[in-house]
Amino acid sequence: MKNGTLYGVGVGPGDPELMTIKAIKILSSVNIIAYPAPEEGASFAREIVSSNLKKDYTEIPIRMPLNANNFPIDEIYEQATYQITTYLEQGIDVAILCEGDSFFYGSFLYLYQRLAEKFEVVVIPGVSSPMACAAALGQPLAARNDALIILPATLPEESLIERMNLADSVVIIKVGRHISKAIAALEKSGLAKNAHYVERATTSNQRIFDIFKAPSPAAYFSIIIAHRRGSAWR
Amino acid sequence: MKNGTLYGVGVGPGDPELMTIKAIKILSSVNIIAYPAPEEGASFAREIVSSNLKKDYTEIPIRMPLNANNFPIDEIYEQATYQITTYLEQGIDVAILCEGDSFFYGSFLYLYQRLAEKFEVVVIPGVSSPMACAAALGQPLAARNDALIILPATLPEESLIERMNLADSVVIIKVGRHISKAIAALEKSGLAKNAHYVERATTSNQRIFDIFKAPSPAAYFSIIIAHRRGSAWR
Repeated sequence: MKNGTLYGVGVGPGDPELMTIKAIKILSSVNIIAYPAPEEGASFAREIVSSNLKKDYTEIPIRMPLNANNFPIDEIYEQATYQITTYLEQGIDVAILCEGDSFFYGSFLYLYQRLAEKFEVVVIPGVSSPMACAAALGQPLAARNDALIILPATLPEESLIERMNLADSVVIIKVGRHISKAIAALEKSGLAKNAHYVERATTSNQRIFDIFKAPSPAAYFSIIIAHRRGSAWR
Repeated sequence: MKNGTLYGVGVGPGDPELMTIKAIKILSSVNIIAYPAPEEGASFAREIVSSNLKKDYTEIPIRMPLNANNFPIDEIYEQATYQITTYLEQGIDVAILCEGDSFFYGSFLYLYQRLAEKFEVVVIPGVSSPMACAAALGQPLAARNDALIILPATLPEESLIERMNLADSVVIIKVGRHISKAIAALEKSGLAKNAHYVERATTSNQRIFDIFKAPSPAAYFSIIIAHRRGSAWR
């Protein structure tokens, strides 16, 4: 029997209307959906697609402890891989929902690396959070000859500063408990003057602050955007 | 009379199914569309949306000489600004089509900076080319603590190398006539081993090459992707 296909579906940053036609088509063709979820409560990826789910699905929530700091928890991924494999081997397609874009950081990677060699995987790109946050802010992300760098705030402060010093436009992800360090690095590399914190962009809970007024710890779905010229259009 | 609204609509990387629901909704609500176009012939942005255009539009092609090197040509933008302003002042909405994402490089910026202070502008983010190319390649763009840098190949070779040396994941845009320099910089910063050239990702003309087999000059819609570990999943 032919194996099923695994779809890695980028579902965009939050607004269900920022899903692509292709993502919606795939969700209407599969019967099994897997998605990242917190240890308890609702999955953001699942919430984004909920208005576009047109039937009863078998759902595979992949629940992660909140204090996992975005590092892989092998056992959880192994178990999800096992469940997904069982369907694929029966010839049943499975879609994994990915917040934002499928291949831009995020947890899909840990399943992809376990499944891509054995099964056909189709990756559907999605609207990614830096682009959604720039739009929410009304500030272009980068222009002309800008060097644009995306940095996880989990890096050491010196690493952040070294890299920020060579950037025109900076996006900081995985802010969380590292927000003070991220702000300090922005200050030391001359990027703090017009830097913004954007939380849950494009959702009804979207909030935007000057970085010096941002909450600490930062929200799970938040990023910081800064530009050396104050704005890419200058 | 109330002014019209200007929409900056990211139409995605090429596959019309990678347009968002929101982009399609806006195209069905406006009567005027403006878009970048080459000096002669078809506009790529216009081609992407063509299957989703449901009526007769007044079209404003913004034609750029091919040898403009992505630098602003003030007169052309001034003239387009004048045309768009005329509609907005009559209370008529206008959508500007943007290849990929609206705020990720690209020509929309030059109209945005001329129009955003006078008119209401709504920016719709789109699926951006780095994400589309990573999906086409089957290689995650970045993961975990990766520093991801996006560099225009128009920068001097030394600037490219200096920045690549501090990156885990590299995306090179505006490759064009600068492809040899970009490849040399990748080699000198230890990133050339598993670097790929992706052209017109997600379209029927998509082509992928190892960078050493890439065409020179590169196609207008092409980027290079490289990762220090060979792949983000390692």
